[in-house]
Amino acid sequence: MNKTIQVSSRGRDDWVDISREVQAAVSESGLDEGVVTVYVPHTTCGIAIQENADPPLKVDITRALDALCPWEGNYGHGEDNAAAHMKAVLTGPSVQIPFEKGRLMLGTWQGINLCEFDGPRNRRVIIHVSP
Amino acid sequence: MNKTIQVSSRGRDDWVDISREVQAAVSESGLDEGVVTVYVPHTTCGIAIQENADPPLKVDITRALDALCPWEGNYGHGEDNAAAHMKAVLTGPSVQIPFEKGRLMLGTWQGINLCEFDGPRNRRVIIHVSP
Amino acid sequence: MNKTIQVSSRGRDDWVDISREVQAAVSESGLDEGVVTVYVPHTTCGIAIQENADPPLKVDITRALDALCPWEGNYGHGEDNAAAHMKAVLTGPSVQIPFEKGRLMLGTWQGINLCEFDGPRNRRVIIHVSP
Repeated sequence: MNKTIQVSSRGRDDWVDISREVQAAVSESGLDEGVVTVYVPHTTCGIAIQENADPPLKVDITRALDALCPWEGNYGHGEDNAAAHMKAVLTGPSVQIPFEKGRLMLGTWQGINLCEFDGPRNRRVIIHVSP
Repeated sequence: MNKTIQVSSRGRDDWVDISREVQAAVSESGLDEGVVTVYVPHTTCGIAIQENADPPLKVDITRALDALCPWEGNYGHGEDNAAAHMKAVLTGPSVQIPFEKGRLMLGTWQGINLCEFDGPRNRRVIIHVSP
Repeated sequence: MNKTIQVSSRGRDDWVDISREVQAAVSESGLDEGVVTVYVPHTTCGIAIQENADPPLKVDITRALDALCPWEGNYGHGEDNAAAHMKAVLTGPSVQIPFEKGRLMLGTWQGINLCEFDGPRNRRVIIHVSP
């Protein structure tokens, strides 16, 4: 089953927790056990599973990614967002999470996040549920 | 369905667009909907989904990865390609892309690339199509 | 089929080869062909497929990740392990490996590793085998 959801990001860099939407897709599938693929059809955002309990941590990670991929630089790309593409390479466009008894097997501290690197934008996330 | 294709890279660092080959494997499977896994059985190249429309962007990303993982360094690895292994850790060996009506759900700007970090070489890419 | 295994890491940073355990899960599934998802339900460790033949290479990669994500820093996170979370973002929590005739299609030099960034700890790894 494929389901596409819409996600709105705020600010150039943002993390949007989509765990609830992914769980909803798993529940809608009616499957008891399987694996879900969460995929962004974009090149300047990514998907990361990370702790959402402590908000300063997202700031730390955003800053760390900025340090690795500075926004300003001697880039050849025709737009000014080469750093956002680079961050998307580092985080990747997809994750897979197993589920059991219809529930995502996320750890206690894990949340599924759309990582925006060139926002604010409206993004699509494709959720594929497999047995 | 598993299908293995051969890809030749040019230069030490190269990005080879394999989107067409991945779509061909999906079409050959005859499946309408599912998810495809693209996997490299190598430790010094990776798979990245990125924009292929603007060639300077690949140069930007190659340079950014070089800045993060310098080729020359005080490495203990028995070969001179420790940086290529490190780049492969950052990009990862696999991606998954959902498909629908027999078509990959790639975004407008997305291409599937084998990222060569220790070429030129002949590489294998394994494509697995799941319902 | 979902199977959860326990893995113990040694030291703050460690790589634990779990290739044998993943192959065992594939064999137990009785499936001939498919794809296996290897997933950690944690936010300060990751999964990486890399060469295990040359032990100094793991040291090189550990040092390179430390250079990118320094342990000491001006972090806001309530615990002292922000760097471990950042490393987990870079490596990612999951990989997928196709298998054929009941055997993982790993390359000659590839091993599946749990990458510990905040150990020593006991970790869980979820292995999902799909047709």
